[in-house]
Amino acid sequence: MSVFFPLNQKQVTTGRCPQHDTSQAKQSCRELARDLDVLANGAAASQSQLLSRRMQRQPANPFLELLPLMTDAENSVLCKGVPPEDTLPLHSMSLNVKDPEGVQTVEIDEAATLLAQRYPQFARGQVMEILHAHTRTVLKPAGDWSIAMSAGSMSALDHAIGMFLNPGDTILMEEYTFLAMVDACMAAGLNLVPVPCDDDGILPSELAPLLPGAKVLYTVPVGHNPLGTRMAPERYQQVYDLCAAHGVTIVEDDAYYYQQHNSNDEKADDDASAVAGLELGMNFVSIDRQGLVFRLDTVSKLLSPGFRLGWVTGPKHFIKAFEDLCYVSSQSGCSMSMICLGKLLAHWKTDGLQAHLKRLQLGLRLRCRSLLRACEAHLQDLAYWSRPQAGMFLWLRMQRPRVFTHEEMLESLQRNKVAPMPGGFCSPVRTGDPVPCFRLSYVTPSDGYDLAAQRLRKVLAELSLPSDAGAAG
Amino acid sequence: MSVFFPLNQKQVTTGRCPQHDTSQAKQSCRELARDLDVLANGAAASQSQLLSRRMQRQPANPFLELLPLMTDAENSVLCKGVPPEDTLPLHSMSLNVKDPEGVQTVEIDEAATLLAQRYPQFARGQVMEILHAHTRTVLKPAGDWSIAMSAGSMSALDHAIGMFLNPGDTILMEEYTFLAMVDACMAAGLNLVPVPCDDDGILPSELAPLLPGAKVLYTVPVGHNPLGTRMAPERYQQVYDLCAAHGVTIVEDDAYYYQQHNSNDEKADDDASAVAGLELGMNFVSIDRQGLVFRLDTVSKLLSPGFRLGWVTGPKHFIKAFEDLCYVSSQSGCSMSMICLGKLLAHWKTDGLQAHLKRLQLGLRLRCRSLLRACEAHLQDLAYWSRPQAGMFLWLRMQRPRVFTHEEMLESLQRNKVAPMPGGFCSPVRTGDPVPCFRLSYVTPSDGYDLAAQRLRKVLAELSLPSDAGAAG
Repeated sequence: MSVFFPLNQKQVTTGRCPQHDTSQAKQSCRELARDLDVLANGAAASQSQLLSRRMQRQPANPFLELLPLMTDAENSVLCKGVPPEDTLPLHSMSLNVKDPEGVQTVEIDEAATLLAQRYPQFARGQVMEILHAHTRTVLKPAGDWSIAMSAGSMSALDHAIGMFLNPGDTILMEEYTFLAMVDACMAAGLNLVPVPCDDDGILPSELAPLLPGAKVLYTVPVGHNPLGTRMAPERYQQVYDLCAAHGVTIVEDDAYYYQQHNSNDEKADDDASAVAGLELGMNFVSIDRQGLVFRLDTVSKLLSPGFRLGWVTGPKHFIKAFEDLCYVSSQSGCSMSMICLGKLLAHWKTDGLQAHLKRLQLGLRLRCRSLLRACEAHLQDLAYWSRPQAGMFLWLRMQRPRVFTHEEMLESLQRNKVAPMPGGFCSPVRTGDPVPCFRLSYVTPSDGYDLAAQRLRKVLAELSLPSDAGAAG
Repeated sequence: MSVFFPLNQKQVTTGRCPQHDTSQAKQSCRELARDLDVLANGAAASQSQLLSRRMQRQPANPFLELLPLMTDAENSVLCKGVPPEDTLPLHSMSLNVKDPEGVQTVEIDEAATLLAQRYPQFARGQVMEILHAHTRTVLKPAGDWSIAMSAGSMSALDHAIGMFLNPGDTILMEEYTFLAMVDACMAAGLNLVPVPCDDDGILPSELAPLLPGAKVLYTVPVGHNPLGTRMAPERYQQVYDLCAAHGVTIVEDDAYYYQQHNSNDEKADDDASAVAGLELGMNFVSIDRQGLVFRLDTVSKLLSPGFRLGWVTGPKHFIKAFEDLCYVSSQSGCSMSMICLGKLLAHWKTDGLQAHLKRLQLGLRLRCRSLLRACEAHLQDLAYWSRPQAGMFLWLRMQRPRVFTHEEMLESLQRNKVAPMPGGFCSPVRTGDPVPCFRLSYVTPSDGYDLAAQRLRKVLAELSLPSDAGAAG
């Protein structure tokens, strides 16, 4: 009697077929079989060691074995677990899209609406095809890569922690970073280590001594949250080579990659021709020849957070591990949303996406400049900042902070009626001391920025040493 | 200088405000403050001990502190992290709903479509209000309960593992159960212990000796997957009392609660008046006076898996812990889907939902009877089964299985062109031995069931001992 589950082949248990349609599923099964051979031969053994104990414990998805039986139209299929098709509530849908020439209606017909009501593996075909082509042409990944849908980047980060990290492991991250990722890492029992940065991103000289013993570098290279910086092109290869030398996986959370508005040059044109559109430049997957990078893209900052969708890109064994985790948790996102996003992107085509990105980037550029002007008018003597080149955040560092408590700061914000993000929320090191920094976002209408900066001036003044004391110090 | 994050108040770090609208958010903040007082006073200390190390490590969501600042319309809000509203791609949407009187259009106007494009905490108001009222009137929870949205029950089960269990902990479950939950528990490094059952569900006499040392009982009480059984009313209190005596949390995964079609009586009427509709009977939250039950409802089996939504019900400290986990992972589901579901349920009102459930239940009842007739015609001498009263599954146990391998079984299924779910997939104990059982679902059109049963007969015959050998044995 043979072994029922391949419990002794832990390195192969990360395989799961993308099932967006029958032909792709069959092809994926063949690819999987090939990959399993490779793994069985030990070629990828070092790569599977990058995965967590959780991934190594997870069984292969048993449905994989039934897939050939389920997808043969001649077979009697008695293993489905969905309500009968004739009871599904929706017949069809339509989306009214805000196009430059006015609102256009995109119909979602009966067949697509049926897919929107089934499990995600049946709904994701169109959107994955579009995102795969986009990834190939815009991100240009190196190596033997693949993509998978995610239920948004926060879900994908949760899975990334599950894929790569065990409690007690060390994760490196920019010295201030995405606050929910800090919370997620703390919940996972990780050792969070901040890496010093400048306006060009992570400092390689500061990164190097922190790498021995670390498992993952988490980075937001473009339009950094909260620092507003963009990694300089030459830094990518330096950071990559350092991580590769120490076998450290890079989790590239590029949520703001599509928001490269380049406000750095005040004299640049205020029209759409001057922004990046789809010409977005460097990223880590494009130089990942050793299979170390797990990249997250999100629809939340590209289009809208309401879709709760994103996609991940990386070497195929990472993507298979990701899909295995999705199978027992997020199911890789919402079918309704996948169908709507697929139809929207198919309606736009590349030209429409390009036009959307130019609108988005120009809108952020103009807002960013407005906020910078308001800060220049009211905060010059109280704070430092750098001009953001991408993303939606401006990072204020107080020039002469006095000793103050978190409660004092919150009270001052409340009394002065202004709500920036307190910098301490973004710190991976929660010492109990407030951080004399604030994250400002420039996504609300810019006519409120001058008043906001005046209010913020009062807060900063209350929390600062007198200017002569600063000079004396 | 005060402590910045309440790291020493681990028992209070599970609080997170539902934010579906401003007034509710403010009310929730007050409720939270009250709960925090209770927790600080130690009243709920024993309850917080039910939570995992992960929950105890997770910081409070810092956004909670900003909420009063963000929701005051007079304030300058510079802490949002979403694309500018004028760049969101959708203007409005419409759903064409299959109502009994024909297809009806449900409009989703500009304001609701804006919410559909924001983060879920802003989109979930309407659907949560409807589901809260539904829960109160249909499920009738005892104690100080609350609900939260989930991104479907698989996501909620992943969170339940994260909330309650540490690696190495023991989880009890029915002797065969939901296969993806088995995989999730194995990945989490849990000790999975099966509990023997009969047609009335878990056997209290078998459960009792397994409870000491266990942390969680996972159960699918109604329309069991894969057993097709329904827990008898008197069993609920017996199982509850046993768990309460040992401080064991009950995770009640009642995915098939709405599929109570009662096929048990062949002579019962074949019309909608004879099915349950919203009169659904017992559940564990309705008797949970000690705050031990975490219940999962899913939209997947009630309406369609494509919504990727569900909701959880339980004592408030469980629900807060759940929302804290959602904040660093699933974000509790997809905004687009929440708006569509809210509009659909608001369009239907209770009468429309009742009509839908009657259609669903009657459809399953008729299909279940068809499959039973096909099994009676072709499998009487080869398998045993019980008549399902709820759900979508019929569990076949072979009468005289010979020794066979998993590969032999798969090959026989393939050659005979029939795809049931192999029973071993549903076992929490993966010994390597195939299990001589199969799960059949009755959700596809019933005109294929006779052929399916004929094909299955060939498979069972190939895997059985000769009938005289069985008699001799």
